[in-house]
Amino acid sequence: MNRAMIRYVTSWILRLEGLLLCSSVIIALIYREFDVLPKYLMVIAGCEALGFLLAQKPEDSRIYQKSGYITVALAWIVMSAVGALPFVLTGEIPNYIDALFEIVSGFTTTGSSILKDVEAVSHASLFWRSFSHWIGGMGVLVFILMFIPVKGGSQMNLMRAESPGPDVSKFVPRVHNTASILYKIYLGMTLGQILCLLIARMPWFDTLCITFGTAGTGGFGILNSSCASYTPVQQWIITIFMIAFGVNFSFYFLLLFRKPKAAFKMEEVRAYGLIILTSIVLITVQIFSRTTLYHHLGDAVRDAAFQVGSIITTTGFSTTDFNQWPSFSKWILVLLMICGACAGSTGGGMKVSRILVLLKTLKKELLQIVHPRSVRKVMLDGETVEHTVLRSINVFTAVYFLIFGLSVLIISLDGFSMETNFTAVAATLNNIGPGLAGVGPASNFSAYSPISKLILTFDMLAGRLEIFPMLLLFVPSIWQRS
Amino acid sequence: MNRAMIRYVTSWILRLEGLLLCSSVIIALIYREFDVLPKYLMVIAGCEALGFLLAQKPEDSRIYQKSGYITVALAWIVMSAVGALPFVLTGEIPNYIDALFEIVSGFTTTGSSILKDVEAVSHASLFWRSFSHWIGGMGVLVFILMFIPVKGGSQMNLMRAESPGPDVSKFVPRVHNTASILYKIYLGMTLGQILCLLIARMPWFDTLCITFGTAGTGGFGILNSSCASYTPVQQWIITIFMIAFGVNFSFYFLLLFRKPKAAFKMEEVRAYGLIILTSIVLITVQIFSRTTLYHHLGDAVRDAAFQVGSIITTTGFSTTDFNQWPSFSKWILVLLMICGACAGSTGGGMKVSRILVLLKTLKKELLQIVHPRSVRKVMLDGETVEHTVLRSINVFTAVYFLIFGLSVLIISLDGFSMETNFTAVAATLNNIGPGLAGVGPASNFSAYSPISKLILTFDMLAGRLEIFPMLLLFVPSIWQRS
Repeated sequence: MNRAMIRYVTSWILRLEGLLLCSSVIIALIYREFDVLPKYLMVIAGCEALGFLLAQKPEDSRIYQKSGYITVALAWIVMSAVGALPFVLTGEIPNYIDALFEIVSGFTTTGSSILKDVEAVSHASLFWRSFSHWIGGMGVLVFILMFIPVKGGSQMNLMRAESPGPDVSKFVPRVHNTASILYKIYLGMTLGQILCLLIARMPWFDTLCITFGTAGTGGFGILNSSCASYTPVQQWIITIFMIAFGVNFSFYFLLLFRKPKAAFKMEEVRAYGLIILTSIVLITVQIFSRTTLYHHLGDAVRDAAFQVGSIITTTGFSTTDFNQWPSFSKWILVLLMICGACAGSTGGGMKVSRILVLLKTLKKELLQIVHPRSVRKVMLDGETVEHTVLRSINVFTAVYFLIFGLSVLIISLDGFSMETNFTAVAATLNNIGPGLAGVGPASNFSAYSPISKLILTFDMLAGRLEIFPMLLLFVPSIWQRS
Repeated sequence: MNRAMIRYVTSWILRLEGLLLCSSVIIALIYREFDVLPKYLMVIAGCEALGFLLAQKPEDSRIYQKSGYITVALAWIVMSAVGALPFVLTGEIPNYIDALFEIVSGFTTTGSSILKDVEAVSHASLFWRSFSHWIGGMGVLVFILMFIPVKGGSQMNLMRAESPGPDVSKFVPRVHNTASILYKIYLGMTLGQILCLLIARMPWFDTLCITFGTAGTGGFGILNSSCASYTPVQQWIITIFMIAFGVNFSFYFLLLFRKPKAAFKMEEVRAYGLIILTSIVLITVQIFSRTTLYHHLGDAVRDAAFQVGSIITTTGFSTTDFNQWPSFSKWILVLLMICGACAGSTGGGMKVSRILVLLKTLKKELLQIVHPRSVRKVMLDGETVEHTVLRSINVFTAVYFLIFGLSVLIISLDGFSMETNFTAVAATLNNIGPGLAGVGPASNFSAYSPISKLILTFDMLAGRLEIFPMLLLFVPSIWQRS
């Protein structure tokens, strides 16, 4: 393992984080929050100083697959450990474990909160909280690697470890350029949403924070009611952008630069669209015709579309307390939580492409029994899915449910209901935000014990980094000098 | 597909079922239940007549893998459709769907019931209900195939389709003999339990029914309180035999006929023992020290051991309303439900060996990242697990969770709580019996709609036949003449 390189990358992480924290200083100045301002400056100074001390360019700048995973896992832990400090220093979240939970929830774009009263928090901290979604959505390591030089293949290893989904394909031969195209699409869509929301007359601070939460598919709101108090037009804008940020970014790349027709033929994107449409229709029919919650069909459709978009993309905003919905609609939401958005998007969950490949594998196995002598392959977008990809998807599925089951077991020690514990893990492991019952959209995670909060924090990181980087930290032989 | 052979096997199934139903006639005579007696005789006459009409020995008696799956699935459906008739005719379960649910629950050794008052049912029907567990536990097709001759390899294909677990190994070269050894072990252990319970002064009718439920890991009781009213000694006997019937039968074969040392080295059996011990300890500590339910440690240990044995073997007897236990203990039970007993036992669930192989695969993948150049294989009991077995386990896991999610979705339309719906599916798909909350040990499945009952009936059959035979029925091309 290349320890010198890990230290070097960490120093860059610290210096970048210090820079990013400056945005909160600007917000504090605008809102004249002079009590929190010095705390942010302290953290920034600390970041830059420590970053400067650690910065020593290593001779060997290669990062192999193993080191790639470890570098990414450690970078995210350092970033979170530091990012939690402002909350503790300002006294807005005095307990460090709570603060860590909150910022990990931010960076991993989960959006679960332990804050009971969001509106009591300073603008500077609200901004940092929401901004962390935007930073974490795209990943920071790949961003940094656009600036520091590493030897051939190393960037791909980092990008693989940090990006959501089973497969990262290079659009263009150089990883530098692929990363830069992704960031341009991300930035462009972010600016698009800001513009739309400002035109729809949302206040600028809300616009920024909500857009960061949408772009990163995070879900921190700045009001206790999440998005319920925004106008229908504003809610529809958020709905559309949530769904858009859950689409595989390759779709936009094909659409803009290469072949628009091929974009619309992407099987994952089509499946994603179909799942969303079906879910909206089923939920609308039930909540409109079988409950007394809605008097106008338009309201039911808007709430259903908002919630489906919010949950499948793992954003986690809410416009209604969907905990009040009937069991069938709630279980659709739970299934959407587990399904998640497209690979190669900012969303979490298992990813639509994994589900697709699993279904195709199942179909293949069944047909293999019917026609034993035929040779079949699993195809996606006209290409054969490699044996190693299939295997890693299968292993991912197994370890996913393993971590799921064990996490529920440990947090069950706190004694809450099964629905609360089950959906608390579903919401954090899939980076969604709210669950149901005791952790529903009208509640928060503050009631859990510190140990449970640490478990859920681990789940958020494991979910964002797709489990393996975090699991590798627990393999003893990884720490031996080689 | 060999249709003539399927018809021929069906005729044997019917004639055997008629014969088995005679036992209930004897019980009806003993208890002088002359109102139900003629109904049973009618069904027996019908079975034998129809069986006689269909019996025409086909020229080609080969059964390939595909036909093996279909034969098994259809045989179980026919057996259940006929087995439900006595309940309807006697008026004890007037609705046919309810009666079908009950007998499928019996044959699949699930033990979920829609009966609100078991004690109101006649002895003849109680006996038929419990006896169905004993019949279904070992499988009927392999039994029949000891008597009718089929061409080489055909029996293995049927045995594979009907036996629980990922792998059926032949103990001895001839399948005939393997099946006969398995039946002898099954019969011997059954007689052992009957003897022990009689010595412990349990009434003979209870002894028979409870033993059938234990041997098949079924779980139908004949009292509304399941096993709560039996003496501690009787409960301990049931506990020990439940756990014993959940052990891979290869263990007993090795122990008795070959190498006793090798038996105790079987990884699956060791893991099974370890899971049971750990669960008992954890649950005992929690229910004894953290609740006011127990005043004596002995009672807590006995209830914990009984419930852990009952759930992991998917039997489903209860001595206490474990729905009252705290969340942590309840979630352990849910995990045990999903885990299940050993492969090659009469128990259901995913099977310990599958879980073991999944864990080993995960470990292999992690180490592969750490040491990319090494070549590793997944080993079980010192032998390499074949690539095709690994793949089928992975596919099984995926389709298992798929059916799980969809079933919960459909039965959620009835509107019960998430805990009720989730554990209702867990309890039927894993052939356990009771779930939690609305389908807990103190409740039953009668409140579900007919559609939900059919879904849960399908889940029970899918769980018992390990999913693929039942799924194949839905592949259109299987029905084309070839």
